[in-house]
Amino acid sequence: MNAEKRPTRVAIVGASGYTGAELIRLLLQHPHVELAVLCARERIAPRVSDVLPQLLGLCDLPVETFDAEAVAARADVAFCALPHGASIEAVRALRKRGVRVFDLSADFRLRDPLTYAQWYGAPHTATELLAQAVYGLCELNRDALRDAGLVAVPGCYPTASTLPLLPLIASNLLKLDRPIVVHALSGVSGAGRSASPATHLPECSEGVRPYKVAGTHRHTPEIEQTLSLTASRDVRVTFTPTLAPMTRGILATAYCEPQDGVTAQALVECAREYYRHSPSVSVLPLGTLPDTLWVRGSNRAHVGYALDARSNLVVAMGTIDNLIKGAAGQAIQCMNLSMGFDEGAGLRMAPTWP
Amino acid sequence: MNAEKRPTRVAIVGASGYTGAELIRLLLQHPHVELAVLCARERIAPRVSDVLPQLLGLCDLPVETFDAEAVAARADVAFCALPHGASIEAVRALRKRGVRVFDLSADFRLRDPLTYAQWYGAPHTATELLAQAVYGLCELNRDALRDAGLVAVPGCYPTASTLPLLPLIASNLLKLDRPIVVHALSGVSGAGRSASPATHLPECSEGVRPYKVAGTHRHTPEIEQTLSLTASRDVRVTFTPTLAPMTRGILATAYCEPQDGVTAQALVECAREYYRHSPSVSVLPLGTLPDTLWVRGSNRAHVGYALDARSNLVVAMGTIDNLIKGAAGQAIQCMNLSMGFDEGAGLRMAPTWP
Amino acid sequence: MNAEKRPTRVAIVGASGYTGAELIRLLLQHPHVELAVLCARERIAPRVSDVLPQLLGLCDLPVETFDAEAVAARADVAFCALPHGASIEAVRALRKRGVRVFDLSADFRLRDPLTYAQWYGAPHTATELLAQAVYGLCELNRDALRDAGLVAVPGCYPTASTLPLLPLIASNLLKLDRPIVVHALSGVSGAGRSASPATHLPECSEGVRPYKVAGTHRHTPEIEQTLSLTASRDVRVTFTPTLAPMTRGILATAYCEPQDGVTAQALVECAREYYRHSPSVSVLPLGTLPDTLWVRGSNRAHVGYALDARSNLVVAMGTIDNLIKGAAGQAIQCMNLSMGFDEGAGLRMAPTWP
Amino acid sequence: MNAEKRPTRVAIVGASGYTGAELIRLLLQHPHVELAVLCARERIAPRVSDVLPQLLGLCDLPVETFDAEAVAARADVAFCALPHGASIEAVRALRKRGVRVFDLSADFRLRDPLTYAQWYGAPHTATELLAQAVYGLCELNRDALRDAGLVAVPGCYPTASTLPLLPLIASNLLKLDRPIVVHALSGVSGAGRSASPATHLPECSEGVRPYKVAGTHRHTPEIEQTLSLTASRDVRVTFTPTLAPMTRGILATAYCEPQDGVTAQALVECAREYYRHSPSVSVLPLGTLPDTLWVRGSNRAHVGYALDARSNLVVAMGTIDNLIKGAAGQAIQCMNLSMGFDEGAGLRMAPTWP
Repeated sequence: MNAEKRPTRVAIVGASGYTGAELIRLLLQHPHVELAVLCARERIAPRVSDVLPQLLGLCDLPVETFDAEAVAARADVAFCALPHGASIEAVRALRKRGVRVFDLSADFRLRDPLTYAQWYGAPHTATELLAQAVYGLCELNRDALRDAGLVAVPGCYPTASTLPLLPLIASNLLKLDRPIVVHALSGVSGAGRSASPATHLPECSEGVRPYKVAGTHRHTPEIEQTLSLTASRDVRVTFTPTLAPMTRGILATAYCEPQDGVTAQALVECAREYYRHSPSVSVLPLGTLPDTLWVRGSNRAHVGYALDARSNLVVAMGTIDNLIKGAAGQAIQCMNLSMGFDEGAGLRMAPTWP
Repeated sequence: MNAEKRPTRVAIVGASGYTGAELIRLLLQHPHVELAVLCARERIAPRVSDVLPQLLGLCDLPVETFDAEAVAARADVAFCALPHGASIEAVRALRKRGVRVFDLSADFRLRDPLTYAQWYGAPHTATELLAQAVYGLCELNRDALRDAGLVAVPGCYPTASTLPLLPLIASNLLKLDRPIVVHALSGVSGAGRSASPATHLPECSEGVRPYKVAGTHRHTPEIEQTLSLTASRDVRVTFTPTLAPMTRGILATAYCEPQDGVTAQALVECAREYYRHSPSVSVLPLGTLPDTLWVRGSNRAHVGYALDARSNLVVAMGTIDNLIKGAAGQAIQCMNLSMGFDEGAGLRMAPTWP
Repeated sequence: MNAEKRPTRVAIVGASGYTGAELIRLLLQHPHVELAVLCARERIAPRVSDVLPQLLGLCDLPVETFDAEAVAARADVAFCALPHGASIEAVRALRKRGVRVFDLSADFRLRDPLTYAQWYGAPHTATELLAQAVYGLCELNRDALRDAGLVAVPGCYPTASTLPLLPLIASNLLKLDRPIVVHALSGVSGAGRSASPATHLPECSEGVRPYKVAGTHRHTPEIEQTLSLTASRDVRVTFTPTLAPMTRGILATAYCEPQDGVTAQALVECAREYYRHSPSVSVLPLGTLPDTLWVRGSNRAHVGYALDARSNLVVAMGTIDNLIKGAAGQAIQCMNLSMGFDEGAGLRMAPTWP
Repeated sequence: MNAEKRPTRVAIVGASGYTGAELIRLLLQHPHVELAVLCARERIAPRVSDVLPQLLGLCDLPVETFDAEAVAARADVAFCALPHGASIEAVRALRKRGVRVFDLSADFRLRDPLTYAQWYGAPHTATELLAQAVYGLCELNRDALRDAGLVAVPGCYPTASTLPLLPLIASNLLKLDRPIVVHALSGVSGAGRSASPATHLPECSEGVRPYKVAGTHRHTPEIEQTLSLTASRDVRVTFTPTLAPMTRGILATAYCEPQDGVTAQALVECAREYYRHSPSVSVLPLGTLPDTLWVRGSNRAHVGYALDARSNLVVAMGTIDNLIKGAAGQAIQCMNLSMGFDEGAGLRMAPTWP
């Protein structure tokens, strides 16, 4: 980027939740942008450090009530980190005023409004925007993201679940007649900043529990959409999200029958080839199994593979930090592609280990 | 039990590890036994509280070097909590002297010596004892355990993995032509008391990671053996153990195709019927998903079910405390059955929650 | 206790919180009592396992709305585990009907109604009951607890803080002219079952923070009251509670100047003598420092000592499980003494380690 | 820094431990340096990602055996992250060859060789280097660090303990006749990368424990040295380190008598004035208490104050991330000052929250 160019002015709508906080943290370090506006629905404050004390001495912007006009006047780009449903109106208002929007809610991820209605319990109220929205899985849609005005940033589970499967499906290494089992673990920050009994430390720090199993979690159709588009056929998934007693990280493990003759090494090589130009994804060597700690605090995804010869099943694993590659970081990666910045700009930090 | 009867004198061989410590804790509360001898290989001490400070003021027995003769002179029953391989000789020496043995190692779990040799890398050196050993999954082998002189206490993963599946297989509710996917999470105490990089808090408290995936974990053949015996046919499993950042607890989730027409409610009812006389197992009502915290600190197992109609898969879940129902508690339950005590004697404590 | 005697019938008022749940767990194992009535304010349910799923298969009592008349008809003894303020009326109603009450709130702990008013912001509305209440620190008030009809069970912090200091003060080993610094760490269950941002796992599992420091925490006057009564003079304390990222456990560390010539060994011996008849307290040998894990899950307290010769300060440390010796267990210990049972009845379980 | 200038070439000696890994992570993002050499004693590897898998795709340098000549040929600056004792020879060899050294061991922190000998059990073998070494507490020694050739980077506990006290002592707000009580909590990463029973997750994830109390921890004389130099008189400290069940973070709480008439607000204002030019330190407003989570993952320190009027004691609190402001980050801050870079270069990242 030309050093003389004015930095891109950025607004964050929904700045006081976990995704918003992570966007602030990452964008403060981004070489080509300037944080210009922070909006929230609940935690309005004269200084963002009043509601996010970790920003004391680092950012003094106020947290304002959302006003599309005011945002459009002061920002070129907006990240919307609102709950699903709440996002549609904000996105519409910003798009109408020409603001480029990266939406982290689920509202624009499902291409088919009927699927949306079926899983979210109400018809989609902005189908005209839905038609414009680009699904922001950068490794899949890199070209479509260039100059995109509205990007639906993928969910955390779908990102971790599809990244290890995409190369194998694209190269036709899997038999897809039967459903793929996807078992996924998530850290508790995936539940957001609102406290609840399920996230009360004494009731979740020393236990694991599945939730919304057997095809009832709303990330199921998103995973199926991505895999089906890649396979050019219907792919069915049974998805089991499980809460793990940690703050950040997703580990997704997928089970599927390989095409005849596929070897474990072939799985790794296929993924290496697929991700050779993807700065955020690393393929683990055969025999190395992933650990969410190895990606925590970064925009990185690790994918790894094993082949169970006894039961003839591929085990495909993916790990990400749910708040970064599963949310804020991936949104910035989308912005980089949309704006023509380097894809990894502001996203090169190594994982925080240990 | 008759109040005048002399209490059963118990020895623990391998008393200073986690399983040994848990045996001490539970047996100190058992109404029909007296802790008589504690042996260990490494942490010999004049008082057990020197190596297990939590026992200060509660147990003053010494920790002695193992000597079968001395144990036989002072104990009627021995629990062997040694690593696999180390157990065979201790068990042989104790059995020869008439001591009833409950062995918590893997040495006597696999009925077929060839399978043992294949998975443990060396021929079994006590096949005559192997033939006598009763597999101590109490809910399955209650009758065979009566008066048993040598019991192979099941592994923690096999206990959690088979308990939810047994009723369904026994009632022929599952199609078993394809492999069952078993995804299991374990707390770190499953790795034992020896510190290692993998269990060093900074490298495991905020991350999850699979290990020994794709049919390489030694609990795989143990799970298959139990399911195959129940099904009267070969059952194949792909097993994925995963380390979760907590101390205790196992959650096993199994995926299998149902027979045609099976409903979710039928799964629950089948398990309720199967476990109606099992004091340690509770079947969760439909819609309630298990949580390892609900069984932690107790000898209880919870099993729960869901049916994914979209992908036509049964999701069968089981939770236990790996050190209790997965080790020390189950061993005591075996002793209760073997000695003719009430099955739940000394094992009725409610889970430690939160 | 005579085996023919009818078991004591027990009610728990406030049964669905953490202290209530722990009372249920412990009383289910108590040899001389029968759980008869469970009441709660919020989580009314046909079966207690509906709101405390860990009790599935172990206890089928309903959770009822509190009604003093009904409780008195079915119970001899009541444990009140209500928030402070809410307790006074329930206690009054139960006492009027002759029920022996063990109150776990703060409402009857401070002997001086003026001190109560000063720290709780409102006058005490049951001063006649306050005069009857016995402070239930068993190790201090063993004799007064015999036949007591109303017992104020001590707070968790005061129990952990005063146990290591009491022997030294009773034997005049400390100079008390200057304030004692008491720095205490507590697990998050001390905050109760209500979720809040402060106990939301992502915001407390990887951090420590002090709260209500500098003499603003309400346990301060309770600690001072106990120490002052023992010293027969005013003792001043500065108390710093700190939230530690774990579920259970309190570690209190107190700093005070020793009398001239006092040695570290003298501190240990003084405590050994003081606690020689106390089944719940162990004194650590010199050189062994306490660990909350060594008491977790039990009614035990560990006290330990060091002497900093360079700065001439005694370091006196105490550890307890806040929900047991700091609440439910201590309440049962009070009941045992009040009813003439063995002091340790139902409370002998060893700590859950690891 | 001039954009045309060649970046400073940096070596890390002791690259595979936690401090080394953190130095790599931070220096990869530093605008004025180039990572040139990685050395270790144990984990030699062709690629650093073989021993630190989180660096996969981010850094491909080998991990080499240390050779001072080779380092001097390829690096201008070296960070030594070796255990104390092991550091002296490496530092001597590097200094002889003109390499600027930032030493993170304890070997050059104590100015008085006799004090070193007394606490470390052996005479200091490089007193000539000791005389040159600048103590790298940047906020205290900013001027002395300019062009320094050998910097002793402060310990983690001394940094967290002295930062809140320095302003008060420099402004003579404290009475220093009696010892200052410093109670400190540390995350487990402070113990380094070597696994031990004390850091084995099952034995430390759900417990807190003090260690090396009563003036036996080697950071005691370092804290006293800094405070005494600032006070121009002897200051005595009793120091209690405590292990908290988390990975990163230190909270130090200090207790000391104020000079007459000092108010809580005066404490805050004094610190604000003292740190007004310090980019890494923020002073919390009165009423806000620190949380280690608010600084985790950053080079920031928070200091906060309360005044206990009842017991007439100042409570001064400091928090840092032990691996960053307590080690790697502070070392880089020292390098920035020594090299004339902006003090905050490469260190501006906001804390990783949650």
